Amino acid sequence: MHNQEQNQEQNQEIVLAKHPSGTVKADTFKFNTIDMPQCQDNEVLIKSLYISVDPGMRGFMDKGDDDAAGNKFKLNKPITSRTVAQVIDSKSQDFKQGDIVHGRFAWQKYQSVSTDHIAKVDPTLAPISTAVSMLGIPGLAAYFGMINIGQPKKGDTVVVSGAAGAVGSIAAQIARIKGCRVVGIAGTPQKIDYLEQDLGLDKGINYKQTDDMTAAIKAACPNGVDVFFDNVGGELFDAVFANINEHARIAICGQIADYNAKNPPQGPRPMHMLIKKSARMEGFVAYDFMEEFNDAKKQIGEWYNDGKITYKEHLIEGFEHIPAAFIGLFSGENIGKQMVKVADIEEF
Amino acid sequence: MHNQEQNQEQNQEIVLAKHPSGTVKADTFKFNTIDMPQCQDNEVLIKSLYISVDPGMRGFMDKGDDDAAGNKFKLNKPITSRTVAQVIDSKSQDFKQGDIVHGRFAWQKYQSVSTDHIAKVDPTLAPISTAVSMLGIPGLAAYFGMINIGQPKKGDTVVVSGAAGAVGSIAAQIARIKGCRVVGIAGTPQKIDYLEQDLGLDKGINYKQTDDMTAAIKAACPNGVDVFFDNVGGELFDAVFANINEHARIAICGQIADYNAKNPPQGPRPMHMLIKKSARMEGFVAYDFMEEFNDAKKQIGEWYNDGKITYKEHLIEGFEHIPAAFIGLFSGENIGKQMVKVADIEEF
Repeated sequence: MHNQEQNQEQNQEIVLAKHPSGTVKADTFKFNTIDMPQCQDNEVLIKSLYISVDPGMRGFMDKGDDDAAGNKFKLNKPITSRTVAQVIDSKSQDFKQGDIVHGRFAWQKYQSVSTDHIAKVDPTLAPISTAVSMLGIPGLAAYFGMINIGQPKKGDTVVVSGAAGAVGSIAAQIARIKGCRVVGIAGTPQKIDYLEQDLGLDKGINYKQTDDMTAAIKAACPNGVDVFFDNVGGELFDAVFANINEHARIAICGQIADYNAKNPPQGPRPMHMLIKKSARMEGFVAYDFMEEFNDAKKQIGEWYNDGKITYKEHLIEGFEHIPAAFIGLFSGENIGKQMVKVADIEEF
Repeated sequence: MHNQEQNQEQNQEIVLAKHPSGTVKADTFKFNTIDMPQCQDNEVLIKSLYISVDPGMRGFMDKGDDDAAGNKFKLNKPITSRTVAQVIDSKSQDFKQGDIVHGRFAWQKYQSVSTDHIAKVDPTLAPISTAVSMLGIPGLAAYFGMINIGQPKKGDTVVVSGAAGAVGSIAAQIARIKGCRVVGIAGTPQKIDYLEQDLGLDKGINYKQTDDMTAAIKAACPNGVDVFFDNVGGELFDAVFANINEHARIAICGQIADYNAKNPPQGPRPMHMLIKKSARMEGFVAYDFMEEFNDAKKQIGEWYNDGKITYKEHLIEGFEHIPAAFIGLFSGENIGKQMVKVADIEEF
């Protein structure tokens, strides 16, 4: 019965039509109608449910040599991103029809994937979509960036930029749990409400309504900034950086202000200040801490179930809206994790 | 007998005549003839022997709020720097006439200082002048920047800028001792010879005779750069930074290219690359590691006595040449530690 339904529905994919120059536009992507795949031994046929779009994917769209992890998207090949999916056919003993799984999958409605590349989602722990948000790479990036790099101590002042986003909102809450004064930066009144009311931060600053961000940070952080978790970069970075304390730790998680830049952005060199303050600036991705993933997920899950941490997802519905959801990340409208709901769970 | 001699010699000091704007010139300093001091209880009267001049002192000359450590020089007050001196009169049980001591003293030929601010030099360990070079703050900065921040592992590729200088020459040798491929950057043929012949580095690069430093670093570091110990900053930083490996450690020790800049220097923002490479950039001063000073001195002394590490001092003679020696630091002529010999040891 399911197979009939499946065959009636067309399979579709989204490929990289061209390397974007500067801002990503709709013509970066191309939709193809493709065959419904069959699964081979040790593969499962999966149906995409929630597809994640992340600012960091912007770098994978550029022309140039691939990185060590093989992240770069190739022309006329499907884009990939973290996805929650459901197994609808299985040629593996480890997965059965109906299982919810996650992994980095192609932007395809249906695909057959090796069981090496998928992991099960436990639907009893939290809503399944969190496997690509709070309990996925964004939550893990927040956790390791804040805990391992930021090393917040009770009483520290912590600033998080992009604080209403998928990563920033979790990072800021972890700092709050650790007993820090937490100041979040975001760009709409709704986001500031979210930071102060829902996330319980000490202060939200709307950078779009602030003329002198350096002064605003100074006012919000009378004891200076001990930890800076930066998702944004650019002049917002400079404003926070001007207020760092001795031995400050700066976790560079994202630079959304610069991802669409055609040329390497210029700015004040930070080195002199790093010496003056004996401060540390460290870039990272969640995968740097892969061996600690399970412990971190367990901790975040505990905080969530204890009501200490909350999350928000910004859902757009429909496979056809994936490019728009990605492009929308850079206009700063999403509160929480931006993702696309592609299909409902099926009952088997 | 000594007192007679002392009284015949005039005492002199050098004060900050004005805050320099941009490059330091002779008129930044003023010489005063002053009284010969008398020492009070728990003080010693000392005679300066070797006075250290260091690029990092440039920042202390600027107008503006003092830093936490109280380093800033004040108008019409004597400049201070690390100095090796001899006790010629003592009102302390802990020090006797003839003892060699070091500390951060005023640019005065004679001065009386509290015994709280001086430490004895052991003349049997190494030449006494090393108390402000290899076994002083420059050597300690090299040690902690390389060991604690750079964390070089056997087989790593390490690049040191300002490699023929007081700090860089020690840092580069420590990396060599740790089994790394070490590439040193300097700016004269004599310095390159020094790096390759005397310090035993794998490769010296004369940046003044190299058009494309990024390509030159790439050629000298076929496996990329794991540790970058930076004394220079500016475009030299950019050239090395373009070649860093995943998980690179960048110890920001000095930025001599920028110390005389009137405005905060601009350059390509490093954040994106830090994320891409999961790399770390950390500023520091030797005093961050004060609790480990004795262990580090012992280790450097052992390497020296085992012939594994060597040092060079660039001596200028005469108290009247201190300003010129300081100014000369920024023209890049000194090989090894720049200091001024002010007087000979006396026999008592």
